[in-house]
Amino acid sequence: MTDQHMALGVLVHATGSHPASWLQSEAPRDASTNIDYYRKLATLAETGLMDLFFIADTPAARTEKLNVYTRYPLFMNCFEPITLLSALSGSTRHIGLGATASTSFYEPYNLARQFASLDHLSHGRAGWNVVTSANDYAARNFGLDKLPPHDRRYARAREFFDVVSKLWDTWEDDAFVGDKEQCKVFEPGKFHTTDHQGEFFTVYGGLNIKRAPQGRPVIIQAGSSEDGKSFAAETAEVVFSSDPTLEKSQRFYADLKGRMPAFGRAPEEMKILAGLSVVVGSSEAEAQDKYRELQSLIHPDVGRMRLGADLELDLTNFPLDEPIPEHLIPKTANLHQAYFNQIVSMIRDQKLTLRQLYSSYERGKVTLCGTPQQIVDHMEEWIDTRAADGFMLAFHVLPNDMTDFVAHVIPELQRRGRFRKEYSGTTLRENLGLARPANRHAQAAR
Amino acid sequence: MTDQHMALGVLVHATGSHPASWLQSEAPRDASTNIDYYRKLATLAETGLMDLFFIADTPAARTEKLNVYTRYPLFMNCFEPITLLSALSGSTRHIGLGATASTSFYEPYNLARQFASLDHLSHGRAGWNVVTSANDYAARNFGLDKLPPHDRRYARAREFFDVVSKLWDTWEDDAFVGDKEQCKVFEPGKFHTTDHQGEFFTVYGGLNIKRAPQGRPVIIQAGSSEDGKSFAAETAEVVFSSDPTLEKSQRFYADLKGRMPAFGRAPEEMKILAGLSVVVGSSEAEAQDKYRELQSLIHPDVGRMRLGADLELDLTNFPLDEPIPEHLIPKTANLHQAYFNQIVSMIRDQKLTLRQLYSSYERGKVTLCGTPQQIVDHMEEWIDTRAADGFMLAFHVLPNDMTDFVAHVIPELQRRGRFRKEYSGTTLRENLGLARPANRHAQAAR
Repeated sequence: MTDQHMALGVLVHATGSHPASWLQSEAPRDASTNIDYYRKLATLAETGLMDLFFIADTPAARTEKLNVYTRYPLFMNCFEPITLLSALSGSTRHIGLGATASTSFYEPYNLARQFASLDHLSHGRAGWNVVTSANDYAARNFGLDKLPPHDRRYARAREFFDVVSKLWDTWEDDAFVGDKEQCKVFEPGKFHTTDHQGEFFTVYGGLNIKRAPQGRPVIIQAGSSEDGKSFAAETAEVVFSSDPTLEKSQRFYADLKGRMPAFGRAPEEMKILAGLSVVVGSSEAEAQDKYRELQSLIHPDVGRMRLGADLELDLTNFPLDEPIPEHLIPKTANLHQAYFNQIVSMIRDQKLTLRQLYSSYERGKVTLCGTPQQIVDHMEEWIDTRAADGFMLAFHVLPNDMTDFVAHVIPELQRRGRFRKEYSGTTLRENLGLARPANRHAQAAR
Repeated sequence: MTDQHMALGVLVHATGSHPASWLQSEAPRDASTNIDYYRKLATLAETGLMDLFFIADTPAARTEKLNVYTRYPLFMNCFEPITLLSALSGSTRHIGLGATASTSFYEPYNLARQFASLDHLSHGRAGWNVVTSANDYAARNFGLDKLPPHDRRYARAREFFDVVSKLWDTWEDDAFVGDKEQCKVFEPGKFHTTDHQGEFFTVYGGLNIKRAPQGRPVIIQAGSSEDGKSFAAETAEVVFSSDPTLEKSQRFYADLKGRMPAFGRAPEEMKILAGLSVVVGSSEAEAQDKYRELQSLIHPDVGRMRLGADLELDLTNFPLDEPIPEHLIPKTANLHQAYFNQIVSMIRDQKLTLRQLYSSYERGKVTLCGTPQQIVDHMEEWIDTRAADGFMLAFHVLPNDMTDFVAHVIPELQRRGRFRKEYSGTTLRENLGLARPANRHAQAAR
């Protein structure tokens, strides 16, 4: 717990998180399914001494609007994250390897087992982003017409998490003795069967892999609804926050950390990482030009669709150069509360036209254009005013924007004593300054 | 299809397939969860130019008889196979990577996606062993009291396979064009939604990863019941056979290949690999001594349990030095027909005591002790008399027995023109001489 620097993660998807990133002339056409390309990205992030290499996920391809998705093929064609991170575990040594996996579409036993296996493969570098949602396309791949309602998904998620964390404690840390003379591999008394009968799951058994190097993978969440915040306060160790302004982020930070004592947790047991995109330039103007050029490449069909997805409103035929009238906006979000709130605020506060809106909206993050010094000033302010414990970097264009960040921003952070100069721990938990959880059975017994 | 050598796979589990292998003084205590150890094994198998590196699986730890399983900890503590093979994809270049995954305990979408991802990660080297069973311990991890009956499991397996193979054809091979000028990543008309409504699964959607390098992973099966043989004749490309005698294997071979034309398939479209364990010595006597010494290390509790599991009969209190009376033997097997039949034959034909039985029984394979010449003589005979197209090697002690095989048996096979001197293809299919399946939609359209 001595590593007091800010936490830095990087959200990685193919050629970058910007919808037009794949249109760059140097972007490899097969990036999303090219393991050598991903290896280079992971190595670059590790060169930058980052904590977490993170893969978001939706277990579905879109089956509609393919004429739009061919212009912005997010999640239409990509590696499955758990297999991808397993492959990357061998070509990295220090960086954490995290992925999204939905509690709505997995069996708890399979998920507990695969993430425990990934934690062993990586010698303690796995992280699981617990999500309940995805979208109706995903639901239909798993026998449902559409996603269950928000509260039912959270009820399932809580029970899913309960089962998975019980399974992760099947074996006490010192269960395996490997005593050849006595012909005894493990102490039978240090194996604990899970006997769970709940509303969603009935599981009787034990996990067939020893306890993970980290005790369990680092638990990540990103929910910002009431259910989501309560669940995170109880269980999350890393939270991706997605309020774009300092003030809102401070409020979210105080709110979430304030809920932790009710669950017997100290605020330090959770790291809140604010979403951040940066465009680095030798001057602010140069960086802004770079960003504007990229934004201008967004196809109007794509702009309408992205905004419509997060606002949960079909904008296909809506005029580009008029604002969206307030009465058309849904009352509540079913999918992602924070993204929805962000757009609604932009509509109310800034009176933008649809085109202006999609050209400036960034899903759950801020795009900061500036010099390394300006960027570090911003990061310091957010840390020092308790808006975040670190940042989740979503680079618009990969690998270029990450290359710039590693070459120019990381050294400035280091110069100001804000970031490590070498990895201090061997596990993701150690690098984040998170404690290794005790096995529930070991605690009870001693 | 020009590579006419025999096919060779290796079944890998930790310190070896022998129940006493972990007791060897040089066996690493953490072998089953040590990725560096597995990397060395995979590299060794690849040095031996083998076709397939294979991981068997049961998604469960035993929750009973732990005092016995601590003496023989099979599947109590091991990597999850899909994550393990994903990790190994980066440290190997040629060898196929296959694993068991049960149709009873996965969602088809997740399985289709992970195996497609593994096929991309490995550039076309994935194989899936389609099994229906495992055991009641596994069933209880997934909300069931016990395994469904044999015929229900096969009904589910057939539908599962149907869904998975439809999903693997979501994208035509030439769907991704990556046309930056026209802002078009893929041809929307070359994406095909699966719309499946069956008894066990309802799936509406498309796989979110492009078609696998092999079209689909190589389909492996090992069933020997009537249902199993029929399913294999229709869909399997590699079959693990497990009759221990030449004559029975010839009958199985003729039976299975004879069933293929009814499904429009040629016998060459399936490779039958006979289970084989070898102990190599500079003389037959030396090899036999080595094997006897190993067999003598089997703990009586372990001998009783292993035999009892495959005979589906509790032998815990049965006297060691008497034969098992025929009237106690169950009439039919519910779990693995071939293993069951093998034991029943041994009881009827050889009148062995329980101790003799467990000391000579080898699950679905022959142990051959001899010189490299003798071993190759045996292998040639099985190939030339149509008992097998190749062998699935289950080494008693790893890595030692595989090291011996690679150093002494492979060169003898090569000298006789029976085995490759270098890998001829880049995918598992190519190395096995199996055709790449056409996409069903591309066939229909052209």
